[in-house]
Amino acid sequence: MLLDGKKVRDEILVKLQEQIMQEKIKATLAIILVGSDEASQIYIRNKEQACAKIGINVQKYILKEDTLEKDVIKLIDKLNKQEDITGIILQSPVPKQIDFAKVSGLINPHKDIDGFTKENTYNLYLNKKCLMPCTVKGIITLLNYYDIPIAGAHVVIVGRGNIVGHPLSLAMLNLNATVTVAHSHTQNLADICQRADILIAAVGKPKLITKEYVKKGAVVIDVGVSRVDGKIVGDVDYAEVAPLASYITPNPGGVGPMTVAMIMENIVDAYKLGGI
Amino acid sequence: MLLDGKKVRDEILVKLQEQIMQEKIKATLAIILVGSDEASQIYIRNKEQACAKIGINVQKYILKEDTLEKDVIKLIDKLNKQEDITGIILQSPVPKQIDFAKVSGLINPHKDIDGFTKENTYNLYLNKKCLMPCTVKGIITLLNYYDIPIAGAHVVIVGRGNIVGHPLSLAMLNLNATVTVAHSHTQNLADICQRADILIAAVGKPKLITKEYVKKGAVVIDVGVSRVDGKIVGDVDYAEVAPLASYITPNPGGVGPMTVAMIMENIVDAYKLGGI
Repeated sequence: MLLDGKKVRDEILVKLQEQIMQEKIKATLAIILVGSDEASQIYIRNKEQACAKIGINVQKYILKEDTLEKDVIKLIDKLNKQEDITGIILQSPVPKQIDFAKVSGLINPHKDIDGFTKENTYNLYLNKKCLMPCTVKGIITLLNYYDIPIAGAHVVIVGRGNIVGHPLSLAMLNLNATVTVAHSHTQNLADICQRADILIAAVGKPKLITKEYVKKGAVVIDVGVSRVDGKIVGDVDYAEVAPLASYITPNPGGVGPMTVAMIMENIVDAYKLGGI
Repeated sequence: MLLDGKKVRDEILVKLQEQIMQEKIKATLAIILVGSDEASQIYIRNKEQACAKIGINVQKYILKEDTLEKDVIKLIDKLNKQEDITGIILQSPVPKQIDFAKVSGLINPHKDIDGFTKENTYNLYLNKKCLMPCTVKGIITLLNYYDIPIAGAHVVIVGRGNIVGHPLSLAMLNLNATVTVAHSHTQNLADICQRADILIAAVGKPKLITKEYVKKGAVVIDVGVSRVDGKIVGDVDYAEVAPLASYITPNPGGVGPMTVAMIMENIVDAYKLGGI
C-alpha cells in the first residue's frame, strides 16, 4: 500500500489554514539562502507556496555566495529579536566559509523551525517537548496516519546525518521502537536491513535498497533524494521493493511533501511559543 | 578472555598520578550527595579513594534527604564560580523533590565531570570534543585497550538510560559502529542480541542475558548492577555466557573500575579546560 505523502500533506494544510484563520494567527517565516544552490531554490519555492496557501507570511533573504559568516550571524541576531518574525530557516547547504551547525545553532530555539539548535536537540534526546526536525516529524506523522505501530517495531535507519538519520534515531527511540542505525561503515547492510519491520533509507544513493534488503511485509520509507539525468531518484529501488513491502512511500511524493507540511506545523507551534 | 577493568584502571591511575605530579596539577572535585543512599555512599568512597591515590582533592557536600531543589542549585552556582573547584558531581539518584536532569544540567559544562549537561551531550551528538559520561568512556577505553575493533562492528546496547545506554549509543555511532538500541519494549530481545558483535547490557536485571542471547565469539560487556541477597549481580549470566564469548567483563571488576578511572581522567581534562 502506498504511503501517500501528498494526500496527507494536503489534509494537514487544510487543517492548519482553518486554525490560522480561526485563531487569527499572524505568523511570518524568514528564510535565509546564501548563494544560489538550485535544489535549495526549489525547496524554498515549496515552502513559500505552502505558506501562501495557509496564510503565513514569508520574508526571503537571498545573500551572495561569498557572504561572510559574521554577516549571516548578524542577520540571525536581528531576526531573533524581531517580534514580527515567528520562525527562521537557514537553508542548507551553505557555502564553505559558513559553519552550518554553528550558525543555525544561533537561531532563537523558539524560532527554530528546523529543530536543529542545541536546545531542541537536547530536548528531543531527553524526550521532552521540542520543535522537532521536520523530516523526522513528517515520517512519524505519515506512519501514524496509516496506523502503523512504532512501539516495539524494529526500525532500521540507513544514514546518520544530522538532518534526518541521527535525530530520527532519537525520535524513534522515544516512541519505543527498537532502533538500529546503519551507515557507510556497516558490514552486511542487506542483512541488517532485512531485520527491519520499518526500514528508513536516508542516504542519497540512488536505488541502494533493492529487494535483497527488505523483509516481506516490511514498511519502507524512502527519504533519499538524488538527481540522475535531471530526475529525482530515491534510495529505494521502488519497482523491485514495492511487491515485498506492506507499505511504501513513493519518491517523490512521499516524505518530501510531509516535510513541507511539518514546517508549517512547526511555524504554528513556534507562534504559540511566543517567539522572543 | 577476561576484560580486566581493575588492571586497566590501575594502569590508568598510575599514569594520571605521574601526569598530575609532573604537570603540578592542582585539581579539586566537589561531590554533592543529597540523602543517604547506601550504594551512592559506596560509589563516593570509590571516587575518594581514587582521588587520594593520584593526588586530587575532594570536597564532599552531604545534604539532608529533604533539601530543597533551590538549595542544591544555590550550591552548584557557588561551586561553578569557585576557581579552586575543578569538577562537580551531583551523585545520582537524588530524592524526589529534585529534578536530576534539570539540576545537574546547571553545572558549568567545563566542570561537568559526569558529562550530563546539555553542552556536553550536544557535542557528543555532533561528534565534537566533550566531557563524555564516564561509564561510556570507560567501556570504549576498555575495548580499545584490548584492541577490539568498534568501527564496522554491530554493537547492540540493551538499555537506554541517560547515564549509560543512551549516550553510549551516540558515542558508538561516532566510532562508526552499527548501533542497535534495545529496551523493555523490544520484541524478540534474544534474537536482536544474537546479532551483536559487541553486546552491552545496561539494564539492571539480574542475569537477563543468558546463552541464548549471545553469538559465538561475541564481546560481552556487563554494565548492570543489581543487589541480590546483598551481593552484586550483573545483567549477564556469566557462567552460561563466558564459554561463548571471545571477550567478557567480569561484574564486579569490569566496567565499574573503568568508570572510576574515567572520572579521574575527566577531572584532569576539566582542569585543562580551565574551569570557569
